[in-house]
Amino acid sequence: MGSNSFRLVVYGYEPGRFWQHVDEIREAVRVGEGMSDDETLKPAPMERAVHTAEVFAAFCHAAHIEDIDAVATSAIRSARNGGELLERIRAEAGLSARVISEQEEARYGYLAIVNSTTIEDGFGIDVGGGSVQMMRIQGRRLQEAESWRLGAVRMSERFLPGEEAGKKAIKALRKHVARELEGCDWLDSAEAPKTVGVGGTIRNLASAAERRAGLDYTDAQGYSIARDALEELIEELAAMPPSKRGKVPGIKPDRGALILGGAIVLGALMDRIGAVELEATDAGLREGVFFDRFLSDRDLPIFDDVRRASVLNLANRYDQDLGHVRHVAHLSLQLYDALARKELIKASDEDRDLLEAACMLHDVGTTIDYDDHHKHSRYLILNARLPGYTPRELQLISLIARYHRKGEPDASDLGKLARKGDDRRLALLSGIIRLAEQLERSRDGSVESLRVTAKNGTLRVFPQTKRDATVAIWSARRNADLLERAIDRSLEIAP
Amino acid sequence: MGSNSFRLVVYGYEPGRFWQHVDEIREAVRVGEGMSDDETLKPAPMERAVHTAEVFAAFCHAAHIEDIDAVATSAIRSARNGGELLERIRAEAGLSARVISEQEEARYGYLAIVNSTTIEDGFGIDVGGGSVQMMRIQGRRLQEAESWRLGAVRMSERFLPGEEAGKKAIKALRKHVARELEGCDWLDSAEAPKTVGVGGTIRNLASAAERRAGLDYTDAQGYSIARDALEELIEELAAMPPSKRGKVPGIKPDRGALILGGAIVLGALMDRIGAVELEATDAGLREGVFFDRFLSDRDLPIFDDVRRASVLNLANRYDQDLGHVRHVAHLSLQLYDALARKELIKASDEDRDLLEAACMLHDVGTTIDYDDHHKHSRYLILNARLPGYTPRELQLISLIARYHRKGEPDASDLGKLARKGDDRRLALLSGIIRLAEQLERSRDGSVESLRVTAKNGTLRVFPQTKRDATVAIWSARRNADLLERAIDRSLEIAP
Repeated sequence: MGSNSFRLVVYGYEPGRFWQHVDEIREAVRVGEGMSDDETLKPAPMERAVHTAEVFAAFCHAAHIEDIDAVATSAIRSARNGGELLERIRAEAGLSARVISEQEEARYGYLAIVNSTTIEDGFGIDVGGGSVQMMRIQGRRLQEAESWRLGAVRMSERFLPGEEAGKKAIKALRKHVARELEGCDWLDSAEAPKTVGVGGTIRNLASAAERRAGLDYTDAQGYSIARDALEELIEELAAMPPSKRGKVPGIKPDRGALILGGAIVLGALMDRIGAVELEATDAGLREGVFFDRFLSDRDLPIFDDVRRASVLNLANRYDQDLGHVRHVAHLSLQLYDALARKELIKASDEDRDLLEAACMLHDVGTTIDYDDHHKHSRYLILNARLPGYTPRELQLISLIARYHRKGEPDASDLGKLARKGDDRRLALLSGIIRLAEQLERSRDGSVESLRVTAKNGTLRVFPQTKRDATVAIWSARRNADLLERAIDRSLEIAP
Repeated sequence: MGSNSFRLVVYGYEPGRFWQHVDEIREAVRVGEGMSDDETLKPAPMERAVHTAEVFAAFCHAAHIEDIDAVATSAIRSARNGGELLERIRAEAGLSARVISEQEEARYGYLAIVNSTTIEDGFGIDVGGGSVQMMRIQGRRLQEAESWRLGAVRMSERFLPGEEAGKKAIKALRKHVARELEGCDWLDSAEAPKTVGVGGTIRNLASAAERRAGLDYTDAQGYSIARDALEELIEELAAMPPSKRGKVPGIKPDRGALILGGAIVLGALMDRIGAVELEATDAGLREGVFFDRFLSDRDLPIFDDVRRASVLNLANRYDQDLGHVRHVAHLSLQLYDALARKELIKASDEDRDLLEAACMLHDVGTTIDYDDHHKHSRYLILNARLPGYTPRELQLISLIARYHRKGEPDASDLGKLARKGDDRRLALLSGIIRLAEQLERSRDGSVESLRVTAKNGTLRVFPQTKRDATVAIWSARRNADLLERAIDRSLEIAP
């Protein structure tokens, strides 16, 4: 129950296998509307809040959702009559909600951040409707956290109440934020720190920045918005009336009224810590609550390796034969490492990691259909979000998985995310996974491992078999051409 | 084991729920190569056949496939030394294959046709590599069937052996086909008969015709190729050397050598029965064998209603909550029928059927992810193939499912398949499913049925509830606008 919107999110969780988002109802209640003057919830927003709570409670009842954790943040926490609202919600909707403290809110935000990105040291920022939270993270642990009543709803009402957002008002808001944060020493940073942002405001701003950069096919997850790009967005938003701001691609219509205020606050927070870019993540308070509640048997920060956890979560969600996909990964990495040792390729940890992730996920498309399952794998990976990876990495993984069979990889599929050398990179990694997949075509591990030699322009792959490998060798021989071209060597599969 | 290719197809089957295609290996063995002179399998094709059988057998063994049905058709059946080949396959690959008779082959083709299309009366055509089968179907039963050695490999070798396909050679082939079929009276037809075609040759020709018509996003399943369009395609193919024919969009590379011969034979067969168009189906001999073997507890022709069976098969494959989707269908059809009774819409059986199918499948996308599941439903439906529906109908179903939540339907999504009135049609059917889905938002059947009145330009929907319907009414009220616009009436959901 946030200051801007109430949201019911349903998670499904199979312990030890996967968790996923299974349903959601969102209502822009704006319970904090009009309360910035006297810190009192107004009657109309309270009515909307109670009615929405009734609907949410009825939904949980009807859908047999038993484990409900209802939490309220800044607006209800700081309102004089917040307790009264929760009492009405308890009596009329039968829903027991708890107000979380600023510390708890920061902790949930921290849990969302370290479990959905690869941040080790740096800052976390959560821009809510009523308040903002700043967190300092060191060695993936939460070192410091503090909350300020500088949320997007609150600041928009106070500094940008009219149709126009003048330079003066914007300057005043920036100054206000800077002044509020002045005395907080742990926000000082010697060099530009890694910074991650959570919450709907930041998600919308990241999406809008992506659209401006021509990335209309990517998700905000893992996207880094540069401080400069944020400033350009602020200028664009300030030049239009609030009613138009909700129509900017990437911004949700009901956020139009407060997105500019949120953007200005975010810019000022980034300036305070000296951040030159901010990575957005889809995870937020709700994921923090979920992680804390259902994965609490694990040590903090919960996932040891976010990328691995994301990939495995997705593989399990689509019920992959882990024996098979791990074996394809094993053979692929053996090939990759052998090519690197023989200096036939320039190896990099990043490429190796992308190859491994693609191997783990190459067959997820069979969930949809066997026919064209390589294409379906791409679709599923692109739509899944893989916390820990950037949009570019996600695209690369999806393309390597796509080309594990049939067709010719083409870096132009990366669109504006393409970089120099991507054609070579894709050909190599796709060539490797394609050969490895065929060496494991019968899905029975008949080829245990590979020995590789390179002589006179020919790469020889000797499959080490523990049982009949007829299918593997037959299949591999007719699928070696992509790798041959990628390394400019002829390739032989020895019997 | 066909005259052109050997194919291993693996089906998964959950009795009473669904069946699906789970794996496939195909090899263009061309076992019939060079045998048209003396009806003897040649040594090189026999070697290829034995080796391919070894690979297939090893695959089945490794993948723990226990129930194997290996069948051989025309080339092996008619070859003097066909028995010798099967004996070698038995001894060397450990695979027992059976030669099916011409009658059995026709029967399997018939089973594929009547269970993957809506044909009641008409003809079936199967163009294989070695032979063609013609079937006469009446009341969905097989009345007549006959086989001729006029297959695509055989005819291409005999009539079109060189690089060029001259007018004379084409004419001679047409004449040959006409002469062979001359005495067969049951091929006579008073008026243009409904005709369905099976087999790889016809599938490739249908795909090529679709590409020529600008339908590069549709599948051959359910597509009708006009006799005129086939003739244009024949002219195009005849004007290029065989090596280029496999590069025509829609034609598989390894079919390049025999596609023209197959197309000319097909044209001559259509002319013989007076067919002006031919509907292609993806199902073929293999599906016929599968249906006969695994669904043999059912009366012929196996599925009572092909469209319903397709929709239910897909819904079960994606593990849909049948209670929920059937209830959405129930409420949608109640609304549709009420609007028709009150003459607010022009009802049609076709639209009603598409609406029902879309309701049954609207949530399949949740298999992929809850977020954007409406878009995923469209993707899954489009990629699934729904035997019994044309590509246009499949697109319409996918779009109605897509717009069961969020967004504005737009007939331009139909591309070249769009027809006049589609914007209205899509708005109406999407408006109905969207309202029905919200009336069943809590998935508990709280709204049992609907009473509808129309007075003074307002449509009033009275949900008949058996339990708390708070969620249903709250949700429906905020999702009525699409239907309001489609019927140009304001809409009230009575409490």
